[in-house]
Amino acid sequence: MTFEEARAAFPVLERYAYLNAGSVGPLAQATYDAMVKAGKTELGPRGSYDSFERTVEARLRTVIAGEIAVEPDRIALMSSTSEGCRVVLAGLGLGSDDEIVTTDAEHFGMLGPVHATGARVRVAAVRNRPAAEALDAIVAEVGPRTRLVAVSHVLWVNGHVIPVKDLTEAVSVPLLVDGAQSVGAMPVGAEPYDFYTVSGQKWLCGPTPTGGLYVRDPERLRIGSPSYFSQTSYEPDGAFAPRAGAARFEQGWIPAEFIAGLATAISLAPEWRFERAREMADLCRERLVEAGFDVVTEPGQGTLVSLQWPGDTKEAVKRLYEEDVVIRDLPGTNLLRASCGYWTSEEDIARLVDGLQGLD
Amino acid sequence: MTFEEARAAFPVLERYAYLNAGSVGPLAQATYDAMVKAGKTELGPRGSYDSFERTVEARLRTVIAGEIAVEPDRIALMSSTSEGCRVVLAGLGLGSDDEIVTTDAEHFGMLGPVHATGARVRVAAVRNRPAAEALDAIVAEVGPRTRLVAVSHVLWVNGHVIPVKDLTEAVSVPLLVDGAQSVGAMPVGAEPYDFYTVSGQKWLCGPTPTGGLYVRDPERLRIGSPSYFSQTSYEPDGAFAPRAGAARFEQGWIPAEFIAGLATAISLAPEWRFERAREMADLCRERLVEAGFDVVTEPGQGTLVSLQWPGDTKEAVKRLYEEDVVIRDLPGTNLLRASCGYWTSEEDIARLVDGLQGLD
Repeated sequence: MTFEEARAAFPVLERYAYLNAGSVGPLAQATYDAMVKAGKTELGPRGSYDSFERTVEARLRTVIAGEIAVEPDRIALMSSTSEGCRVVLAGLGLGSDDEIVTTDAEHFGMLGPVHATGARVRVAAVRNRPAAEALDAIVAEVGPRTRLVAVSHVLWVNGHVIPVKDLTEAVSVPLLVDGAQSVGAMPVGAEPYDFYTVSGQKWLCGPTPTGGLYVRDPERLRIGSPSYFSQTSYEPDGAFAPRAGAARFEQGWIPAEFIAGLATAISLAPEWRFERAREMADLCRERLVEAGFDVVTEPGQGTLVSLQWPGDTKEAVKRLYEEDVVIRDLPGTNLLRASCGYWTSEEDIARLVDGLQGLD
Repeated sequence: MTFEEARAAFPVLERYAYLNAGSVGPLAQATYDAMVKAGKTELGPRGSYDSFERTVEARLRTVIAGEIAVEPDRIALMSSTSEGCRVVLAGLGLGSDDEIVTTDAEHFGMLGPVHATGARVRVAAVRNRPAAEALDAIVAEVGPRTRLVAVSHVLWVNGHVIPVKDLTEAVSVPLLVDGAQSVGAMPVGAEPYDFYTVSGQKWLCGPTPTGGLYVRDPERLRIGSPSYFSQTSYEPDGAFAPRAGAARFEQGWIPAEFIAGLATAISLAPEWRFERAREMADLCRERLVEAGFDVVTEPGQGTLVSLQWPGDTKEAVKRLYEEDVVIRDLPGTNLLRASCGYWTSEEDIARLVDGLQGLD
């Protein structure tokens, strides 16, 4: 598949410099078509959850497992990375005597559930440090009461990659890795981690909202947030026999159109996707630096590029949008963030740089 | 709107005696069309959650609030009644010193989260009792350690109506009412209850999965299961300022097509829906009794009719399905269940009775 062919799959790119996959990726026409087709079955007798649906779900678990190089029976289908974080934290049974270590650059989708446990939260300052210092900063917060380290693989604020593999070797406590900005953007092998979340609608370009959760040892995590799909049988007081594998953690029905859409979206991604995304992120960074912008992302990190903006970031995003350039502001910061995927062209980046210069 | 017009909205009814709204209601062509139209916007720059989406969400909260006669700012959009139950139970902070009272006829979507709290669960036996004895049976289980009474408004196993209004007067503890089998099937005023869940895909004939949660006093329920949509600002340790109203309990992004679909579905329901559904359920019951089946549902209850089946219930459902008659079996029981809506015809019921007789 050529770059032109891969790019042509996404109608939004005909008009927009769409640089916002860190929020939601572009949707391919084929993905949309698969969703409409699957959704059409809903006009028939839809209340008959049968072996066919279970087969389709199993296939999607296999596809997601393939993206992060793990066994499919360790994958639970989720509606988002946030849901995956909630499931893990609800299952750990932590309280005020426990500590969770995280960073100062996490998404609230993880941070909220961390806070809700009532555990003491120790926050490693990594956001304004060189990427190479993140590991030490995190390890320094780990102590005898630490029950979980909960960090992103790639920081959503600046795209820096946290060396999570090294982290597993440096600490012995369980690790929850938020994969929202990594899966689909760079190669991921999730096997070394206790818990790893997957977002379907970002770099995998699937329907919103979709996702997955990898649980290395499903038997050892309590089902703290059960659903009808968690059990195979139950008693009148709610005690239940859990379903096999990580599917026991699934929170609800995944619509047929979302299953079809995410599976199709993943199947469309070309083999060279990671290299290309990497190159475009580096190019984006270079062009912004050359143009004199205050880029906070180091070279050679993830596929997000963030820059400090001296003015009103919301207004900047809005004015760029009027020129069909789509990026996002990060609430509570003065950062603007551009997301580069395998579908990103040099022209997209030029339009971003021109657009930002036009705002000065 | 005539009965014929209302029925013609649902393509599935052209061929099927579709008697399974207690699982998932029929989908109208107009609902499907609204979903496809809304979904098409996803082919554009979809990563720009803006005031438009918030307006659309607010409208759906108003529509759901209207269905249960409460204020819209007490409604959280949910993906299911089960999600609503999880949110409530995660927020109550119950433990092993506490008791929750429920019945022996609850869906696992509520029972699972009840069990997961670790509280002692007291189970009132109502399933095999006359409907008129349910209230006393539930009240008898309430004691000084009871922190919550969690019951269905209409029992999913046999359609019996629990007098939840009388229950609020008989006990002083908070009440969580599972409205999966009531909202859209009969008139509901949820205001007297602390928590009331709504299913969108059953009697409201919306997309799967959709729903809502009524919280009478949002400020008093802890956000035990926070999402990005719970907060307006947050600290690095996850402490946060909650969003106003019950929207703070929302668990994630509601897809635009689901919002459009559910709002459309609700708008299609005729004014006479409750009377007609009631009549058809009574007719269904009578015809089954006349035909000699062992009906366990009393007259004048909800819109579900259940009967004891002497043989293999799964096999019975499968064989009826082959004749285009759709009902469901209830796992772990020997019950078959038919669901009657305002769209149900006398012919649908005749086909059910004939089909069951053909299995003997």
